[in-house]
Amino acid sequence: MATKVIVMAAGEGTRMRSDVPKVLHEVAGRTLLDWVLASSARLGPEETVVVVGQHADAVRSILGESIRTVLQSERLGTGHAVQIALAEMGDVSADTIVVVPGDAPLLNGLLLDLLDRHRSTGAAVTFLTAELDVPYGYGRVVRTDQGEVVGVVEEADADPEQAEIREVNAGVYAFDGARLSGALAALDRDNAKQEYYLPDVVGLLSQEGHRLEALPAPADDIRGVNSHDQLAAADLIARRRINRSWMQAGVWMQDPDRVYLDADVVVGAGARFYPGVHLEGRTTVGERAEIGPDVFGVDSQIGVDARVWYSVLREVVVGDGAQVGPYASLRPGTVLEEGSKAGTFVEMKNTHLDRGAKVPHLSYMGDADIGPRANIGAGTITCNYDGVSKHKTVIGADAFIGSDTMLVAPVEIGEGAVTGAGSTITRDVAPGSLAVERSSQEEIPGYAARLEDRRRQKAEE
Amino acid sequence: MATKVIVMAAGEGTRMRSDVPKVLHEVAGRTLLDWVLASSARLGPEETVVVVGQHADAVRSILGESIRTVLQSERLGTGHAVQIALAEMGDVSADTIVVVPGDAPLLNGLLLDLLDRHRSTGAAVTFLTAELDVPYGYGRVVRTDQGEVVGVVEEADADPEQAEIREVNAGVYAFDGARLSGALAALDRDNAKQEYYLPDVVGLLSQEGHRLEALPAPADDIRGVNSHDQLAAADLIARRRINRSWMQAGVWMQDPDRVYLDADVVVGAGARFYPGVHLEGRTTVGERAEIGPDVFGVDSQIGVDARVWYSVLREVVVGDGAQVGPYASLRPGTVLEEGSKAGTFVEMKNTHLDRGAKVPHLSYMGDADIGPRANIGAGTITCNYDGVSKHKTVIGADAFIGSDTMLVAPVEIGEGAVTGAGSTITRDVAPGSLAVERSSQEEIPGYAARLEDRRRQKAEE
Amino acid sequence: MATKVIVMAAGEGTRMRSDVPKVLHEVAGRTLLDWVLASSARLGPEETVVVVGQHADAVRSILGESIRTVLQSERLGTGHAVQIALAEMGDVSADTIVVVPGDAPLLNGLLLDLLDRHRSTGAAVTFLTAELDVPYGYGRVVRTDQGEVVGVVEEADADPEQAEIREVNAGVYAFDGARLSGALAALDRDNAKQEYYLPDVVGLLSQEGHRLEALPAPADDIRGVNSHDQLAAADLIARRRINRSWMQAGVWMQDPDRVYLDADVVVGAGARFYPGVHLEGRTTVGERAEIGPDVFGVDSQIGVDARVWYSVLREVVVGDGAQVGPYASLRPGTVLEEGSKAGTFVEMKNTHLDRGAKVPHLSYMGDADIGPRANIGAGTITCNYDGVSKHKTVIGADAFIGSDTMLVAPVEIGEGAVTGAGSTITRDVAPGSLAVERSSQEEIPGYAARLEDRRRQKAEE
Repeated sequence: MATKVIVMAAGEGTRMRSDVPKVLHEVAGRTLLDWVLASSARLGPEETVVVVGQHADAVRSILGESIRTVLQSERLGTGHAVQIALAEMGDVSADTIVVVPGDAPLLNGLLLDLLDRHRSTGAAVTFLTAELDVPYGYGRVVRTDQGEVVGVVEEADADPEQAEIREVNAGVYAFDGARLSGALAALDRDNAKQEYYLPDVVGLLSQEGHRLEALPAPADDIRGVNSHDQLAAADLIARRRINRSWMQAGVWMQDPDRVYLDADVVVGAGARFYPGVHLEGRTTVGERAEIGPDVFGVDSQIGVDARVWYSVLREVVVGDGAQVGPYASLRPGTVLEEGSKAGTFVEMKNTHLDRGAKVPHLSYMGDADIGPRANIGAGTITCNYDGVSKHKTVIGADAFIGSDTMLVAPVEIGEGAVTGAGSTITRDVAPGSLAVERSSQEEIPGYAARLEDRRRQKAEE
Repeated sequence: MATKVIVMAAGEGTRMRSDVPKVLHEVAGRTLLDWVLASSARLGPEETVVVVGQHADAVRSILGESIRTVLQSERLGTGHAVQIALAEMGDVSADTIVVVPGDAPLLNGLLLDLLDRHRSTGAAVTFLTAELDVPYGYGRVVRTDQGEVVGVVEEADADPEQAEIREVNAGVYAFDGARLSGALAALDRDNAKQEYYLPDVVGLLSQEGHRLEALPAPADDIRGVNSHDQLAAADLIARRRINRSWMQAGVWMQDPDRVYLDADVVVGAGARFYPGVHLEGRTTVGERAEIGPDVFGVDSQIGVDARVWYSVLREVVVGDGAQVGPYASLRPGTVLEEGSKAGTFVEMKNTHLDRGAKVPHLSYMGDADIGPRANIGAGTITCNYDGVSKHKTVIGADAFIGSDTMLVAPVEIGEGAVTGAGSTITRDVAPGSLAVERSSQEEIPGYAARLEDRRRQKAEE
Repeated sequence: MATKVIVMAAGEGTRMRSDVPKVLHEVAGRTLLDWVLASSARLGPEETVVVVGQHADAVRSILGESIRTVLQSERLGTGHAVQIALAEMGDVSADTIVVVPGDAPLLNGLLLDLLDRHRSTGAAVTFLTAELDVPYGYGRVVRTDQGEVVGVVEEADADPEQAEIREVNAGVYAFDGARLSGALAALDRDNAKQEYYLPDVVGLLSQEGHRLEALPAPADDIRGVNSHDQLAAADLIARRRINRSWMQAGVWMQDPDRVYLDADVVVGAGARFYPGVHLEGRTTVGERAEIGPDVFGVDSQIGVDARVWYSVLREVVVGDGAQVGPYASLRPGTVLEEGSKAGTFVEMKNTHLDRGAKVPHLSYMGDADIGPRANIGAGTITCNYDGVSKHKTVIGADAFIGSDTMLVAPVEIGEGAVTGAGSTITRDVAPGSLAVERSSQEEIPGYAARLEDRRRQKAEE
């Protein structure tokens, strides 16, 4: 008996008021649809079909090759969507069909529980329910006085008594394939929206005397996303789950609600997070590294015992024990080796900073290769662009670059060489040499008095 | 039957421990009093009188011309305050008098509901109540066993049983003018505080057999502010309301509780807010603009598709598709035209950056006019102040300013002109020319060895 | 009858997954153990003994001389730990023994309440309890149907009915010394963990017919910390208490949950905090100072009416009315006198900025002494390190340093002296003089055309 999954992703999500299809909005760095596919992948399904609608192309573009899509071009309801998907699947009479909404990012392992229950009870359908304080917008689960499920009534079709029911249908089902096919064929559109309702299948199966199972689930886990409000709420729950799991692994967070880690970020034990840390994509943080406050990192690697605060990192490598910030911006292609430093008001792009080298302040290093233990004075700039092309700057080991040195690339500063403060260096400097570009200092006495005269004059104007 | 409003703003708010009058503290960028006046303005009142006390001048200074004030110089209670206001108003016997506290910023449309109820029932008085878990500090609403309101008892005068009542008087009333005048004349001061209590009017009217209406309202909506704690709580509620309304309009917020938008800020659909965004005053944000993390904007316009992060903006214009930050400070009078850029460690003041012009890093542009597509190298500074006056720098279209160029204003760089890195430019540069101020680079071999000697010597000291 | 305190700090806290002993983790800048010792110090104890375990040396290293420790080398349970402590204390039969966990940072004045109750009732033991919604992990308080306490049962030993009890033992006790000694001698290890349980003493004393008192306490106050999750939760509660107390003292906080003040920070009335403020150690903030957003301050003094935003301060003094930021980093030894300014992209280290002096932008001032009213142009750098030693820069009163001046230390700029933009100053400048280091500006016409040719050529490649 194979498991096949149908993901319902045809909804337009008009309440998002967005050009982006609803299921492509993100929670913790993954689209809603990716979260759902990751959950359903845990079932080891033989086949997964995503029902797409208006934004079909956009949705298809993010799906892997193994996922098939079917287009629901008419808005005839969820029952109709499942019918289309089944048509694409062929004979499913011997299969278990799991139907899951494309906008439920917090399911975790619930689908496994659902399938277990379904298989172990032999029900015709098993579906997830939740108790909500405010059931508004959801289909209500109707039970007999004995507590047996007899059907699901949609909000629009509920009578006042039914509207009071707080147990709602989560829209997540495991069906016996044969029973599902049969019941879908019997669906009609005699309801408020004139659509084929998938939840009506539950009632039909009940009327036919089949066994129904309703599996109660935590309300947070079955949340769908229909608005930016709900997206933010889902993001907060996902964030708290991610952070709790890292804290359990030995990570310190001063204020976990202010740490924003994408689902794929990896953090070492003993790492310390101050508030305002955003790590996106495939960023990794080494053991005992101290991050934040206020760090934005994308697809970067941060080494063990590193310290990064008040900084932005994009596609960079920060080596073990290296220091970044406060107030540094490291751009793609930058590698800080062990024990090196990019300090305050320092920007780097495509630059390699070797072990123990330091760029403490007010510098721009672009397309530079900086040797071990080199020291770069404040105000140093690699003039890497001549208006036509970008050029490289090479600085040797133990070099000592004076403050405000302009390194007009391409240029090479030899090992141990020194540059004088305020020099514009346009030619290579030999190892061990001092290079200076400077005029003589002239002094004009009495200038302050003249300045004072002009100030007085201006004040009188 | 005209509506007239009395705003109670004489309270000293001693628990704020502040030199600022209580009603002038702000929530979401508006004073408490402004919030109340905005709510009461929705009633279209014929007349509005604000009762002021100790800080009368400060309160008056923020009121428009159409709002009258009366001074309550003695602290004789809320009943006394209303008496003074009525004296100022003249004959109100044919009017509805709405009394509202000056410190209730979250009333929204509640006053309209109050007036509707009052008019439709023909009650002598209609007042707002709320159920509080902790009713501490509020007057309790006393009802008969049949649920009929018979009066309001102040905390200080409540017996133990009354103190348990959780329905409280919100201090927001609509009165029949004639009944109010009559009852006020009958008030006494036989109570714990020896003051004329306005809520006693409710009891008096009840004793006289008049109809009373109590309109239950959400507890959050009727909140007053008596301490900084309560001010912060009100600010959080206001912020959540503002943010929810923008999210409903299609705005993405990763963490809405960390987005601080003043009430008058306007945001386009599809805009995206990261945490730590503060927008104050009349700031506007265009569609699909991406703001944050950590942006402070005051009275600024941000265009569609613009990107602003880790930056401070004060009275500036950021054009469509322009980029700001990370780490830029744009000061008043700065205009970034479409597609231009103020990058990392860039400060601008009173500067016009034309279309596609770029100031990518480590620069100060003050009093500058920068032409289309001009490129400003890292470390460039407009020396706009000579110790006496500020002067202007003009940079032509397509100019290419080399790194660390000092532009000693007044100075003009012609169209397409180029400056050499590290040059101090004191005279105008003709269009298409290269201007350089530089000495020749000298090299002194063996300097590293001498440095090493000195280091060794020092270590031996 | 003397009071003696035993602090239980032998737990390993394995769930923290940390090299740091559990009781040395911090809440609001103080270790858990320090919080507990501060609470117990309010009892005026004659003697305090801390029971330490595995990490004995680390724990001892932070304790003052007056606190004794005993080592529990075997893990034989809390009863055993108290026995060891009593052995160290000698005869306690006439004393009250207070036992308190080393990981309970939120006790506040509860120990005083405990001792009062204990003394006034003459009970053999008085202990704190709390009602928890989720009592998981705690010992349950067992009472008779009449509500009399008869004992405490550990989670591992509780029967299903007992496991449902929501009143838990907080692990905080006041014992009659004689009774405690007697009961400890009678303890056995016939339980799930095969340990000597201190809570069993309660049951033993009950069986012997002694009076027991259970003092209910707020659940938040008795929280222990066993995981990073719980540490963050305790930090949030401590932060809220600290912030509420400052707000009551007249401090404005826009979003108190985003203000992180260590327990020893002192704030003046009327100070204003924007979100993202971290103040650590012995930092002080003067009246009406405005701090934040996004400020990190350690062991610094900020004067009255000062303004500090988007900045980092470490061991610095910011004078009255001085301005810092946005985007400044002030390092140890920096003193900003009254009305001075460290503006945007400014770093300072060991620098004295006298009254009214200004460093508005893009500067590094290290080891500098800057006179009153001096004005430092953008891009100015003190070249304080020559590769061997650090040297001092002295700038006189009213000096006017031109943009991009390199001050090669040791160097002295006289009173009122001026430097030209882009100059490297290597020799002292006399008072009132203008010093310039500059070549003549050369112009090469037609350069833009050549550049254009090269661009075209490159595009064709």
